[in-house]
Amino acid sequence: MTERTFTVAVAGATGAVGETMLRLLEERNFPVRRLRLLASERSAGTSLTFRGEEIKVERLSETSFQGVEIALFSAGATRSQEFAPAAVKAGAVVIDNSSAFRMDPHIPLIVPEINPDALAGYRARGIIANPNCTTIVMVMPLKPLHDYGRIRRVIATSYQAVSGAGAKGIEELRRQTLAWASGKPIEISAFPKQIAFNVIPHIDVFQPNGYTKEELKLVFETRKILGDESIGVSPTTVRVPVFTAHSVAINVETERRIEVDKAKELLSTMPGLVVFDEPEAGRYPVPLLAAGKDECFVGRIRADLSNDHAINLWVVGDQLRKGAALNAIQIAELLIDRYL
Amino acid sequence: MTERTFTVAVAGATGAVGETMLRLLEERNFPVRRLRLLASERSAGTSLTFRGEEIKVERLSETSFQGVEIALFSAGATRSQEFAPAAVKAGAVVIDNSSAFRMDPHIPLIVPEINPDALAGYRARGIIANPNCTTIVMVMPLKPLHDYGRIRRVIATSYQAVSGAGAKGIEELRRQTLAWASGKPIEISAFPKQIAFNVIPHIDVFQPNGYTKEELKLVFETRKILGDESIGVSPTTVRVPVFTAHSVAINVETERRIEVDKAKELLSTMPGLVVFDEPEAGRYPVPLLAAGKDECFVGRIRADLSNDHAINLWVVGDQLRKGAALNAIQIAELLIDRYL
Repeated sequence: MTERTFTVAVAGATGAVGETMLRLLEERNFPVRRLRLLASERSAGTSLTFRGEEIKVERLSETSFQGVEIALFSAGATRSQEFAPAAVKAGAVVIDNSSAFRMDPHIPLIVPEINPDALAGYRARGIIANPNCTTIVMVMPLKPLHDYGRIRRVIATSYQAVSGAGAKGIEELRRQTLAWASGKPIEISAFPKQIAFNVIPHIDVFQPNGYTKEELKLVFETRKILGDESIGVSPTTVRVPVFTAHSVAINVETERRIEVDKAKELLSTMPGLVVFDEPEAGRYPVPLLAAGKDECFVGRIRADLSNDHAINLWVVGDQLRKGAALNAIQIAELLIDRYL
Repeated sequence: MTERTFTVAVAGATGAVGETMLRLLEERNFPVRRLRLLASERSAGTSLTFRGEEIKVERLSETSFQGVEIALFSAGATRSQEFAPAAVKAGAVVIDNSSAFRMDPHIPLIVPEINPDALAGYRARGIIANPNCTTIVMVMPLKPLHDYGRIRRVIATSYQAVSGAGAKGIEELRRQTLAWASGKPIEISAFPKQIAFNVIPHIDVFQPNGYTKEELKLVFETRKILGDESIGVSPTTVRVPVFTAHSVAINVETERRIEVDKAKELLSTMPGLVVFDEPEAGRYPVPLLAAGKDECFVGRIRADLSNDHAINLWVVGDQLRKGAALNAIQIAELLIDRYL
């Protein structure tokens, strides 16, 4: 990597993804010259530690971005829509973790291991979109299978951790579980139903066709990332009482038949993806294995018993890391390498 | 129902399913003349309450069945294999909740709302098999769709409660959660990995083709119950940290196209199944809704975006009730009505 350093802003620094971004900027020795931490009024004034130094969190505003070269946004779609243009105007490249710009045809939607060349399009708007967390985890195994066999159809069924809903999701599962443990009444606020000891097939808002917005993200973002509008995706997204790491059960139908051994070989070539598939020895991915790890893990790779052009697999990834903060920082690294 | 009464034995009376059987025999005013409770050496000597009376649990043995007319077995496949023949020899009809006899071509596998006429075959061996808990919950919505549109292929992805593994499963989730709440180390015994705050794509033993036995039950039992060997099933079964009620995300492909409205109409005609599908009003099934209920609940009914001959749906049922004890007792009721 270059020896140049950059002024980096993190908007939404106090959230679950924002805090993971800070940890990753440290871990990866990202070439930070100066770091500015931005958050809403509520969190402004608190401090966060970066490389052993206390950094004060400033209130996110239109004037926050003077001198900023790279702005990592993870403060929700509304704030991205409101403040990303100001950041671009101030000269920063915005890498946005929200859904605000993902489907804008003038804004690239990037998973660096999959479509790095699409990054070139960032100049049109100065904004690069980071995909939905479940989408990122899911497309990691899809990419090598698509390159080899051309994917026709994906049936994706998810098991999504509470931290996908941010710090308030973590807090809700923690509080509900503690209330249960002490026999106290369980209060519901972050999720539409009790999440402790329950599963909820409802993430984001329902649309007229019966799907949630979260489910439709899996459909449209997958096509954009893989660059193939002909891929069919049939999604069901479900919240589960897990703190960190999303799991997705995937059925993949390909034009060219892929035998199980070939699939394992293809998957093992994918950077950022670990084939973890010796089930009889207890080696298959679970959220507690993937939490805190940069890689996604794929296992339970097996031939579909009902369709000889399909395989089943099970992928798990830390959605705060690869599903959000890590992917955004990998995009920033790629941006520096190629364009800055 | 007849006014005659019967001597009933429950083998495995102290287990999670056995205890639910007792509660249901009471709730449904099952015509019990005398109830014998049987269990392994470990539980023999304890007492259980039935209709306000304490009944001593006896040790299950070959001589346990004298005078018994209906024997409900839920003590595991090994004990069913060992003791069901003795029960039959003593003159009882055995309704077996284990996997021991389900795929025996001479033994009917019954869901009373689906294939009641297959019950006639019970005379061949004197044994009737109760299907796997997840299979029962899943076939409830499949039946009316199959009758109308002929199912070609089902992709089933489950979210299975810990009580599917019996009382020890409930205890494990309870203990692990309490240990977490008090900062103590978490011990693993009933499940292959920690189940609290985790999901485990591993139920029952892995087979050479990469599927678990639990997954293959969904394939073969579904075909036997629906009486159609041409139905393809592609299963993924996953344990989740939920105490009671299994959920299954189902993608159903039919020969004849079924529009969503038609599917809802068909599903609403199915006895024992409740269409609960007004998602925008927060009305969709979750395990905490279905636990303790006799009915299964189906929602999230929507057109597959990737295949115009397929629909997606989400079914939830109390697997101790409809998935086990209730279905067994419904079989007994049907047996009495038609044959005893």
